[in-house]
Amino acid sequence: MEGDRFEIRLSGSGGQGIILAAIVLAETAWVQEGLHVCQTQSYGPEARGGSSKAEVVISRSEIDYPKAIRPDLLLAMTQEACDAYFNDLKPEGLLVIDSGIVKQIPTDRVAAIPITKIARETTGKTLTSNMVALGAVARLTGVISLKKLEATLKKRSPGGFEEDNLRALRAGVRAGKKVPLDSLPPSVFPDDEEED
Amino acid sequence: MEGDRFEIRLSGSGGQGIILAAIVLAETAWVQEGLHVCQTQSYGPEARGGSSKAEVVISRSEIDYPKAIRPDLLLAMTQEACDAYFNDLKPEGLLVIDSGIVKQIPTDRVAAIPITKIARETTGKTLTSNMVALGAVARLTGVISLKKLEATLKKRSPGGFEEDNLRALRAGVRAGKKVPLDSLPPSVFPDDEEED
Repeated sequence: MEGDRFEIRLSGSGGQGIILAAIVLAETAWVQEGLHVCQTQSYGPEARGGSSKAEVVISRSEIDYPKAIRPDLLLAMTQEACDAYFNDLKPEGLLVIDSGIVKQIPTDRVAAIPITKIARETTGKTLTSNMVALGAVARLTGVISLKKLEATLKKRSPGGFEEDNLRALRAGVRAGKKVPLDSLPPSVFPDDEEED
Repeated sequence: MEGDRFEIRLSGSGGQGIILAAIVLAETAWVQEGLHVCQTQSYGPEARGGSSKAEVVISRSEIDYPKAIRPDLLLAMTQEACDAYFNDLKPEGLLVIDSGIVKQIPTDRVAAIPITKIARETTGKTLTSNMVALGAVARLTGVISLKKLEATLKKRSPGGFEEDNLRALRAGVRAGKKVPLDSLPPSVFPDDEEED
C-alpha cells in the first residue's frame, strides 16, 4: 500500500457472490495490524437489470468517505460491469477481468484471468468463481495477507462449502501470481500524454 | 418512511451475525419499488475489542453519503454498543435493545425485547438471535416489507440454517408487533426542552 488509502471495487452480476468476496476481503484486511476498513454495497434501481458492485476501502487512518472514489483495483466479472465502472479506475489502477466473459477490454493494463473456467475446473462449480476472483484480487492487491485470507474464508463460508471455497480461493491466488504485474504497460490516458 | 432518508444501525459484538442481518435488510428494501439502498460495515482498530456495527441507509433518491449519520433506528445487542452509539440516534429515533443483555438503558423511548431469550426458546440456538433482531427491527421500521423479507432470507441463509432462521425471524416480527410504538414516550433531550 503506497498511499494512505487503497480502494477495491468488485463488480459483476447479482448471482456471483460479490458481496461475500468483499466481506472476506474487508475482514481479512481488518485483522491485519492498524488498518481501518469500510465495506459497502450500493443497490439502486439501475442495479436491478444487471451490474452489482461491492467495495472495500482500506486505510491507515480513519475513513471519512467509505465508498471507492477512484479504485486502485477494479474486478469486472461481466462486460456490463466493465463498461459501467472502468472509467472510475485510477490511471495507474489495475483492471482484473474474467477473460472468458469480458471480451471488449478497454486497456492493456489488465489482468485477464479465466475466472469462471478455473472455478469449473477446480471444483466443478461455477458458483465458486467468486472465490477464485477473491484469491486473484487478494494476491494482486499486495495489501492482503493470504494466510489470514484463508482463515477468514473458513470462518465465513456457509457449512458444506468450506472445502470447495478454499480450493477455489487457492486456484485464484495461483492465477493472480502468474500475472506479470511488473511488465504490464502503464495505462495511458489522453490527459497523461506528453506533448513535444 | 416520512422523510426522504431512513437510517438503520445494527450494533453488537462480532459474533452476532450483524452483517448478515444488515445485508438481508438492505436487499429486502432494495427489491421494493424505487428505493435506493446502501449497506456498510466499518471495521476499525477500536472494533477489535468489542462493538461491531453494520448500517443500512434507505432513500427515495440517490444516496451520496452511504453511512448513517443520525440513525432513525438503533439496534444495540450489547451494553457496549448501546453506550457507544446511543448518542448518534435521532431525537425521535427508536432504540431497540436485547433486554436480557442491555441493562443500563439511556432513554424511555425504547423497544426492550429479550432477543437472545426468544432465539433460545424458538430454535434452541442463541446463534439465531440476529434473525430475531432482524424480524423485530424490520417490523419496527415500518419501511420493510415483511413478506419480501422472508424471501430474501431464504435466498441468503447458509444451507441447513434456513428453517431455523425463518422461525427466528418470525418470532422477532411477533415481538416487534407487541411493542406499543404509539404510546412510547418521545425522547426528551436537553436541547428540546421548552423554556417557560
